[in-house]
Amino acid sequence: MSYALQVSQPTDFLAAWARELKHSALQDMLVDGSRPGILSLALGLPAAELFPVKLYSEAVKHVLSTDPKALQYGPPFEPLKKHIVKLMARRGVECREEQIFLTAGAQQGTNLLARLLVEQGSQVIVEEKTFTGFQQVLEPYQPEILTVPTDLATGMDVDAVERLLVEGAKPALIYAIADGHNPLAVCMSREKRIKLARLARKYRVPVIEDDPYGFISYNGYEEPPLRAFDDEWVFYVGTFSKIMAPALRTGWLIVPESLVTFLATVKEATDINTAPLNQRAISAYLDGGHFDQHLSELTCEYRRRRDVMIAALTEEMPEGTRWQKPGSGLFVWVELPSDVDTGVLLRQAIDEEQLVFIPGHAFAVNGHECPKNSMRLNFSNNPGDRLADGVARLARVLKRQRAAALVEKVV
Amino acid sequence: MSYALQVSQPTDFLAAWARELKHSALQDMLVDGSRPGILSLALGLPAAELFPVKLYSEAVKHVLSTDPKALQYGPPFEPLKKHIVKLMARRGVECREEQIFLTAGAQQGTNLLARLLVEQGSQVIVEEKTFTGFQQVLEPYQPEILTVPTDLATGMDVDAVERLLVEGAKPALIYAIADGHNPLAVCMSREKRIKLARLARKYRVPVIEDDPYGFISYNGYEEPPLRAFDDEWVFYVGTFSKIMAPALRTGWLIVPESLVTFLATVKEATDINTAPLNQRAISAYLDGGHFDQHLSELTCEYRRRRDVMIAALTEEMPEGTRWQKPGSGLFVWVELPSDVDTGVLLRQAIDEEQLVFIPGHAFAVNGHECPKNSMRLNFSNNPGDRLADGVARLARVLKRQRAAALVEKVV
Repeated sequence: MSYALQVSQPTDFLAAWARELKHSALQDMLVDGSRPGILSLALGLPAAELFPVKLYSEAVKHVLSTDPKALQYGPPFEPLKKHIVKLMARRGVECREEQIFLTAGAQQGTNLLARLLVEQGSQVIVEEKTFTGFQQVLEPYQPEILTVPTDLATGMDVDAVERLLVEGAKPALIYAIADGHNPLAVCMSREKRIKLARLARKYRVPVIEDDPYGFISYNGYEEPPLRAFDDEWVFYVGTFSKIMAPALRTGWLIVPESLVTFLATVKEATDINTAPLNQRAISAYLDGGHFDQHLSELTCEYRRRRDVMIAALTEEMPEGTRWQKPGSGLFVWVELPSDVDTGVLLRQAIDEEQLVFIPGHAFAVNGHECPKNSMRLNFSNNPGDRLADGVARLARVLKRQRAAALVEKVV
Repeated sequence: MSYALQVSQPTDFLAAWARELKHSALQDMLVDGSRPGILSLALGLPAAELFPVKLYSEAVKHVLSTDPKALQYGPPFEPLKKHIVKLMARRGVECREEQIFLTAGAQQGTNLLARLLVEQGSQVIVEEKTFTGFQQVLEPYQPEILTVPTDLATGMDVDAVERLLVEGAKPALIYAIADGHNPLAVCMSREKRIKLARLARKYRVPVIEDDPYGFISYNGYEEPPLRAFDDEWVFYVGTFSKIMAPALRTGWLIVPESLVTFLATVKEATDINTAPLNQRAISAYLDGGHFDQHLSELTCEYRRRRDVMIAALTEEMPEGTRWQKPGSGLFVWVELPSDVDTGVLLRQAIDEEQLVFIPGHAFAVNGHECPKNSMRLNFSNNPGDRLADGVARLARVLKRQRAAALVEKVV
């Protein structure tokens, strides 16, 4: 599903890794599929209608009319760090402002960490199926990627991580999404969290905990992030993208204090500062005291959407289809009956039902084997009736495909 | 003036280049020197009091109340590209929207280009003294850095570039600041622009033209950017940081269209999107038609400040001090009499006169030799009377230093 970028002009001036830069064919399909009328269960977009637009607009206005430094270059805004310390405390994470490093979102956070930790030929440990954005982060370093399986009920196979380490692997990092896994929609069990944090310390390997979704928890009870179990070897990556709005491009790292100076140097080389106005406006919005209610409404609505999607899957999907009800995150991971190829299904879904989703193999690391019958469905970016409609469309495509297969068999 | 970062905790998990990460001692001195009461001619900050705060605030409000996509993830905002095409046209650069790639400021622009062009062991051509931010960009790649001198009246020694190329150098890029050079405050002559662009094409070496200052021109007449002389081998880097405000973190590249897909892939891996709200608000501000007047007022005020600084230098500096009146940019490059060491002078200036500036050798590439008597003075970030006061303080420190040297000689 990927191919070298096609270009008409010479590219011999590009660095070797970039000449081989892979571009997802899927991406093109998604662009094709973004025509009006298309129903998308593909991308992991939050619901724009739930952004705190009015209050954020007021926060920007307030900051611009009172803070003459808001549009200037500037160091990280300390009051925002204080807010983050408090936010993390309710997740069970104790941290200090000195351990917080502000970034232009979670993607930049993982990027800066990889920049400091990974070099040509490093080993890294990731799951067999994981967030494509982190796979992109690794690409320029061409590391040796060691993979471990994931259990759909309890998360990353931490015993497999241990085996790799016992056998002598010296990875530069272990990448983990403990809550609302993208794409597998699983939350890691408490036992695995504790064990992974212990392994990180024992083998002196940093764990990058990518946590864009952890604040949105549907079960009322959640396990604390990995960072709660080790404050030295777990590097936590957080963001305001899913709990406020992506366009703010503001996130944070929680790392050992000694790492902050290194991050500051690399960040300066990358893009100088994280937007000072946005830092201040987010902080002013949080000062206003409306965030708790916002997060609660957001969680409530996403839970409702999740439940609509689960109910529709239960109603519409053929026998032999499997999924788990996610406790966090924006996705359901679906495994269709084993004869279905979701790559083929996607083409049909676009043509026949104006429906898009992401086939599971798009998340396979380094062409690692991935069940052809798997897919990721997003439930955050459509209201309930559209979600139900989307699953119904999917069911119709499946039925037609099976009927056609039957005819072919008979003929 | 630089040393390895001091840390108490283990850093053996860092990539090799990062373990050797240099941190400018100067940076610490500048932090020390940012105490209240300190007069800074050091950093290249634009004047915050000239930012279009009110109109930008209105633009944000307008966008947030009318565009539901403003806070969502989103592709580059096409109307902003149209504005940039028009902005570039008045500099004599013809380009198409398809050649424009939006970035989180100029620093990210050069960073993304370096990511695509430079690899471990590449050669690059830069001037002996150049913008430290670009030196930081190169650091992770540990390239072989080839340097050329700079003439303080006509800019980069393009003949020296040619010699390197004729002798067989195969650089991944040539880095140039054609207007308002940082730190050397020179604008490149037309002849050199033409020749550099020709060399780039002849030897198939991309020139990165870093142009944060080119829109602010004091002489009424300016040469067109390098990009005007070659639309294939000159990769132009622009930004709204100096002409609107740095906190917007929005800039642009003008590159061959074939490179845009590569940039998009690397950008996505870096920080997903350039802040969609900021793109829209800048575009809305430009729609308003106030930019011409803003730029004219900005240029007028910076010209006034430049003239105050030049007049003060003429009045106050000891015989044998040299500088050029800059035609663009935010700096004056000063060479004091040859017995002065500006590193020593800076310590005294902080202690005795609460004054900071940047000694020239801070810009020296790879420890390249740099006259010890040189310094960079910024004139954008203080009103005229403060600038005159700053130069007077500098003169007092110099006088005291010379008097002390005389006493020492006599004793």
